[in-house]
Amino acid sequence: VVAAIKEETFLDLAAHTKTIEWMGIGQLGKLINFFKREGVTHALMAGQVKHTQIFSGAIPDFRMVKLLASLLTKNTNSLIGAVTKEFASEGITVIDSTTFLTPLLASKGVLTLKTPNEKDLADINYGIEVANEIARLDLGQTIVVCDRAVVAVEAMEGTDATILRAGTLSNGRPLTVVKVAKPNQDMRFDVPVVGLPTIESMLKAGATCLSITAHKTLLFDRQEMLALANKSNISITGT
Amino acid sequence: VVAAIKEETFLDLAAHTKTIEWMGIGQLGKLINFFKREGVTHALMAGQVKHTQIFSGAIPDFRMVKLLASLLTKNTNSLIGAVTKEFASEGITVIDSTTFLTPLLASKGVLTLKTPNEKDLADINYGIEVANEIARLDLGQTIVVCDRAVVAVEAMEGTDATILRAGTLSNGRPLTVVKVAKPNQDMRFDVPVVGLPTIESMLKAGATCLSITAHKTLLFDRQEMLALANKSNISITGT
Repeated sequence: VVAAIKEETFLDLAAHTKTIEWMGIGQLGKLINFFKREGVTHALMAGQVKHTQIFSGAIPDFRMVKLLASLLTKNTNSLIGAVTKEFASEGITVIDSTTFLTPLLASKGVLTLKTPNEKDLADINYGIEVANEIARLDLGQTIVVCDRAVVAVEAMEGTDATILRAGTLSNGRPLTVVKVAKPNQDMRFDVPVVGLPTIESMLKAGATCLSITAHKTLLFDRQEMLALANKSNISITGT
Repeated sequence: VVAAIKEETFLDLAAHTKTIEWMGIGQLGKLINFFKREGVTHALMAGQVKHTQIFSGAIPDFRMVKLLASLLTKNTNSLIGAVTKEFASEGITVIDSTTFLTPLLASKGVLTLKTPNEKDLADINYGIEVANEIARLDLGQTIVVCDRAVVAVEAMEGTDATILRAGTLSNGRPLTVVKVAKPNQDMRFDVPVVGLPTIESMLKAGATCLSITAHKTLLFDRQEMLALANKSNISITGT
């Protein structure tokens, strides 16, 4: 059975599922009732809900209003963490979101033909240090570095916008993009994802080097992504 | 005597100084030689050099190249800190940049007619916590919060761009802007500044609340700034 969030789910998913129910982003009570009716004991979150959805016009139902009111902050961990606890209180276990996607997880080491040079490695190392702090604070997952200085830090705008912004600030110098999992990444939700759009944004911004966290980052459109990176002289490293 | 950086200084400054020498952003050797020739023993940094100048096409002189090569990272503290040490090694003491600007430092408490409400205070408190971490990492000084979630984090784009970006992400909800001094703010350089443009950006972005660090933040165009804030129902608080 699939619970689909109207604001974020492709319509044609219905054709590939046995039982699907559509609901609004704030309808937590409806979601839990649907799962209980269908006898769901295990749930898996797939795809991403944009963090800016918390500012959408969608009207949360009573259960969601109660949950939101109980939160001290509304960053990703506290929001989705609270939803996951709410499921648990109803006997529904949320499982690792990559359970069926293991082949898509990044491996360790250089994934492209191009290998990062010494300058790139210095930027990666400094970048990981900073990005780990940003991820620990649950602000964002991505930072962009140029010549051992941080050019852009991600919050709610998303990875692609962060990369493009750095491109407007670096005066054409090559950029290094560092995307990390949280220090204690909960694999049930908010697992970092990179894909073809990441490389396309890097190309536009003049970024030549990408670092991701091995075993905890999903690569979408893997083949197309690596092909474009190789064609464009971009290196990708799992660290 | 005044050493003016070509890339950042208003041309008409020359009319107000006895001795002025113009130099490029990377000409550290020229700067120190000028000071020594003029018998300077104390120097004060005034105004801001955009961090993106490190990506400019300006060619650093030999002394600056040596200094840049010695740095592990090129964030503000390490860059300007190293320049300050270089001065010290030549017997030139850099003094508190606010020495002649004490009346412009923000006082503690609410500076506007409007007082932050309970929701604003929750956003200010959460915002200060996060901004202190960002400032400690020497990334930027500004973050923007909406309903206890961080919308935007500043790196090299500057305060105004960070505020305007948050405005595009918040779907019209009121924003709180938090700008902080570093936990161990060096008053010799990189002291936070707000002014009329800050309030103008807030108006464009739909921000209604500004928090700054008391006694460590300069208020430029103070009267015009407070007048615009009062007219626009914006609160400003020194914390």
